[in-house]
Amino acid sequence: MRNAYVDQLDTIIDDLVTMTRQVQEAVARSTEALLTADAEIAERVITDDAEIDAARERVETRAFELLALQQPVASDLRMLVGALRMVADLERMGDLSVHVAKVARLRVPLVAVPEEMVPTIERMAMVAEKMVGTVAGVIADRDVEGARQMEEDDEEMDQLRRSSFRLMLDDAWPHGVEPAVDIALLGRYYERIADHAVSLARRVVYLVTGEVVGSAAEV
Amino acid sequence: MRNAYVDQLDTIIDDLVTMTRQVQEAVARSTEALLTADAEIAERVITDDAEIDAARERVETRAFELLALQQPVASDLRMLVGALRMVADLERMGDLSVHVAKVARLRVPLVAVPEEMVPTIERMAMVAEKMVGTVAGVIADRDVEGARQMEEDDEEMDQLRRSSFRLMLDDAWPHGVEPAVDIALLGRYYERIADHAVSLARRVVYLVTGEVVGSAAEV
Repeated sequence: MRNAYVDQLDTIIDDLVTMTRQVQEAVARSTEALLTADAEIAERVITDDAEIDAARERVETRAFELLALQQPVASDLRMLVGALRMVADLERMGDLSVHVAKVARLRVPLVAVPEEMVPTIERMAMVAEKMVGTVAGVIADRDVEGARQMEEDDEEMDQLRRSSFRLMLDDAWPHGVEPAVDIALLGRYYERIADHAVSLARRVVYLVTGEVVGSAAEV
Repeated sequence: MRNAYVDQLDTIIDDLVTMTRQVQEAVARSTEALLTADAEIAERVITDDAEIDAARERVETRAFELLALQQPVASDLRMLVGALRMVADLERMGDLSVHVAKVARLRVPLVAVPEEMVPTIERMAMVAEKMVGTVAGVIADRDVEGARQMEEDDEEMDQLRRSSFRLMLDDAWPHGVEPAVDIALLGRYYERIADHAVSLARRVVYLVTGEVVGSAAEV
């Protein structure tokens, strides 16, 4: 009995890692759709989000069953409640990738991002995707050091966001309102993906060390 | 012993209702700061958010203790896990009000919202605030009917968001990029507050009836 229980806990960790990889792919694909104005790839991100939602439901059901049937205490209880929160983060990250894909789709056949803004948006997407990739490793290997390094990536994301505002709000911005609005929202989506990645990493640090990093309210 | 436990469950509900009222006030105040360019009110929203964060921690600690010590099953377990999710929604709604307040503060002494956009933003804020108010009642009284009516408010929010885009992206928009970017983000913040309100209401419906409304993944 105890072994089946441990197997179920392991399955939840595996599912979280798989979901994180799915999210990472959604971030990469939605960005590809955005920067190449590829409606087909955008559609696929939007359709495939159902798989992330289904994975969330699977983890929730399993975690809830274990909570109800096994009455876990201490670290197992913390892990199961943590898993319930982590799937909520992951599902939101999937939704945010869908938002990116929808901006891409809305502007096809044009590329939503003006050329001089491409490096900034591309870098934001790369930082976000890297952070999601790091989170997968953090969850799989309980890699507390990897989690700490993500705070730096998050700082870079903030800088990129500020620099995108500087470019758009400059008098020399020649593209008018529509691309500026797109980029303000895209920047927000990537920033939120990064925030959720940091929040996931902090949860793992808390589960492994009992230590609260950053705002306690984030854990 | 059992009575102390029931008292603790009741205290969690009371705390959730209090937090919801705090969020409602944050939405109202941040909007007031926004539409009157009042830096002092904006500051207060930003400072007072610490109280919402503290309330979240209090509810989390209490819910977690009950999970660990009382080993609840069935509906109590569902309620406690639901409470952990609900405080996460409420904390985010507080953060989103802070974002509104920060846009207000950034543009002081100017009003961030151009005059012809004021009715739309004002209505968005009113709908959001009304939805948060409804949620407080839904939680306090397990008012399933109130929860269902919120889906209509959410539909109005979507329409307001679309109409704000129509105004900004019209060739006749005379205000340039900065106010458009502000309004795109403000619209997003109010829309997200509304989304979280709907998600809270759905959780209560699920707790009361066991019935999943809308996307299962939202519950």
